[in-house]
Amino acid sequence: MDDKLMLMIPGPTPVPEQALLALAKHPIGHRSKPFEAVIADCTEGLKWLHQTQSDVLMLTASGTGAMEAGIINFLSAGDRVLVGTNGKFGERWAEVATAYGLNVETITAEWGTPLDPEQFREKLEADTAKEIKAVILTHSETSTGILNDLETINRHVKAHGEALIIVDAVTSLGAASVPIDAWGLDVVASGSQKGYMIPPGLGFVAVSAKAWDAYKTATLPRYYLDLGKYKKATDKNSSPFTPPVNLVFALQATLKMMRAEGLEQIFQRHDRLKRATRAAVKALGLPLFAPDECASPAITAVAPTTVEAEQIRAIVRKQFDIALAGGQDSYKGKIFRIGHLGFVCDRDVLTAIGAIEAALPQLGHENFTPGAGIAAASKVLAES
Amino acid sequence: MDDKLMLMIPGPTPVPEQALLALAKHPIGHRSKPFEAVIADCTEGLKWLHQTQSDVLMLTASGTGAMEAGIINFLSAGDRVLVGTNGKFGERWAEVATAYGLNVETITAEWGTPLDPEQFREKLEADTAKEIKAVILTHSETSTGILNDLETINRHVKAHGEALIIVDAVTSLGAASVPIDAWGLDVVASGSQKGYMIPPGLGFVAVSAKAWDAYKTATLPRYYLDLGKYKKATDKNSSPFTPPVNLVFALQATLKMMRAEGLEQIFQRHDRLKRATRAAVKALGLPLFAPDECASPAITAVAPTTVEAEQIRAIVRKQFDIALAGGQDSYKGKIFRIGHLGFVCDRDVLTAIGAIEAALPQLGHENFTPGAGIAAASKVLAES
Repeated sequence: MDDKLMLMIPGPTPVPEQALLALAKHPIGHRSKPFEAVIADCTEGLKWLHQTQSDVLMLTASGTGAMEAGIINFLSAGDRVLVGTNGKFGERWAEVATAYGLNVETITAEWGTPLDPEQFREKLEADTAKEIKAVILTHSETSTGILNDLETINRHVKAHGEALIIVDAVTSLGAASVPIDAWGLDVVASGSQKGYMIPPGLGFVAVSAKAWDAYKTATLPRYYLDLGKYKKATDKNSSPFTPPVNLVFALQATLKMMRAEGLEQIFQRHDRLKRATRAAVKALGLPLFAPDECASPAITAVAPTTVEAEQIRAIVRKQFDIALAGGQDSYKGKIFRIGHLGFVCDRDVLTAIGAIEAALPQLGHENFTPGAGIAAASKVLAES
Repeated sequence: MDDKLMLMIPGPTPVPEQALLALAKHPIGHRSKPFEAVIADCTEGLKWLHQTQSDVLMLTASGTGAMEAGIINFLSAGDRVLVGTNGKFGERWAEVATAYGLNVETITAEWGTPLDPEQFREKLEADTAKEIKAVILTHSETSTGILNDLETINRHVKAHGEALIIVDAVTSLGAASVPIDAWGLDVVASGSQKGYMIPPGLGFVAVSAKAWDAYKTATLPRYYLDLGKYKKATDKNSSPFTPPVNLVFALQATLKMMRAEGLEQIFQRHDRLKRATRAAVKALGLPLFAPDECASPAITAVAPTTVEAEQIRAIVRKQFDIALAGGQDSYKGKIFRIGHLGFVCDRDVLTAIGAIEAALPQLGHENFTPGAGIAAASKVLAES
């Protein structure tokens, strides 16, 4: 039953009714006073969500567009940058940086393992000439469900003193705390179809004062993604180019919901859903792809060995109308990913676990006590 | 009454109920079979609308993003380009081309007058060394309501033989015929909040085989706006980056409506609405900004001399809940613009004219027979 589809993928995530209804509103002029008020309200909410007093800019773009803007506005061709890669998205930032002629050095970890902050420390400490202009990394690696240790890596960047830290927070913002001002993060990019709980189409970039200083001398060519234009317009509650008016209406609705729930409560909810999901997967005898200590609160990747990942996904999709995500690139068919990001509640996790649990015996995977997944998840949910 | 707002601006344009309801649908996974079918359907409809067998690509971007993609994918730094500028958007393409280090030569006409095809002919004929790599221009100049003579200018580009023709059809596509294959246009960019009848957030770029040849050797840096990635994905009914799923649903709905109406019927409707609007404005004793012979079917700009443009707009907005557009840049306060683009019918034009007619005497402008605007518009509508 296609109309019963339930999304448990890392994006698009489920959209609450208030946002769907906002999407269905007649658009208004984007250069009108009423729309200025909408932008002002959203900007305030975005700063709250980003835990920053600095700028948060909205772009009509996917998360990749936002991240590209986060890179090209602050750097020049030939600049030496360190890019952390331990999954599809880290690799993508290395590709973007290379496409723009940056001098890219990657710090790599296997998919399913976290970036090692020590490797960043070594490179940064060795750079006494202060040639490294930026450290670029993915906080929550959507392709693997790893939450990289941004706090520690950032501490090493701060010790370096010169390099900017440019962060993909696409699946961490609104799920894990990304305290931009407290940590001194320079550029943080994200996208609407994740923790924001609205459909794709809006990208966001938070920019620190230090990053704006770098902007002044950065020479990579840009126009549509020129964040200076966005700042100038946002300061007047406007936009440099036509914004996706209906998505902005929806954003206003979900930011209001998020503020009503509270930041700490949002993070705790995601943490609880993550722990319940992981406990259930273990109880079902399925190997988790990411270790407990660096597991993303947004996505749990599972690497089954006794059954085919794609077969589990197929049954869960066909019989139970739940979309789980598959693996990407060389992990296609090797893992599946459960999204528990955004507008997701305890019931949703129980439902997804129940469906996986029901699918496994159909595929000959029976080395678990029937009901063990639900029992394990319920226990975590009851305790926290 | 804010909820009674009626949009008569050149974008966002009014959105039909079917598209609003499509926007309010729960998103689905963008990497799923059902969404592949949606992309396939949209791609077919887009090719029909663009009158082309070649590629039409969808981007998560505003029209400016689409136009920038249309420029940077086919050119290299230092390339000599001719840019036609006779309004805000022509000027914008000169800015984009300059930002990317192209060797920009502008062919200029005053705002409110059309580009002179002869000036293009002269430059192109003089270029026997075939150094001009592209001619870039705006078809319907949204800021002034001028429809530039694309057909003639394009003929001169074809006679040159080497240069690409890159066209901003943002407010002409879906209002005037843009026969891409018949004319041999190379790159045509547009945006969703115009003739497409859906909210802003999607950009479109049509690309000819000749342009793809130029793509192979073009060296400007790009990643998010790299159209090669979009072509590769679109050929598989996919997208390189997360598409704005709900806007694509809405696009599918309006493309279906457009195909039911028919291309010729759509163009005739816009032509009729344009002529009715212009006849009414003349009957009200208000000067039209663009001459009849080069008036855009999407926008009618009015340049009142006896009354303040902004005062007319204010009354029409406040008393009649109709949004008209103001002038841009140095024409702010000097002109106002009536959009009759997209989901607009005879009734809408009568309504807007009625409101303007009612506003004028309040501002002391009474040199017209009461009812003359409606009478003139009705006459045109009855005859055609």
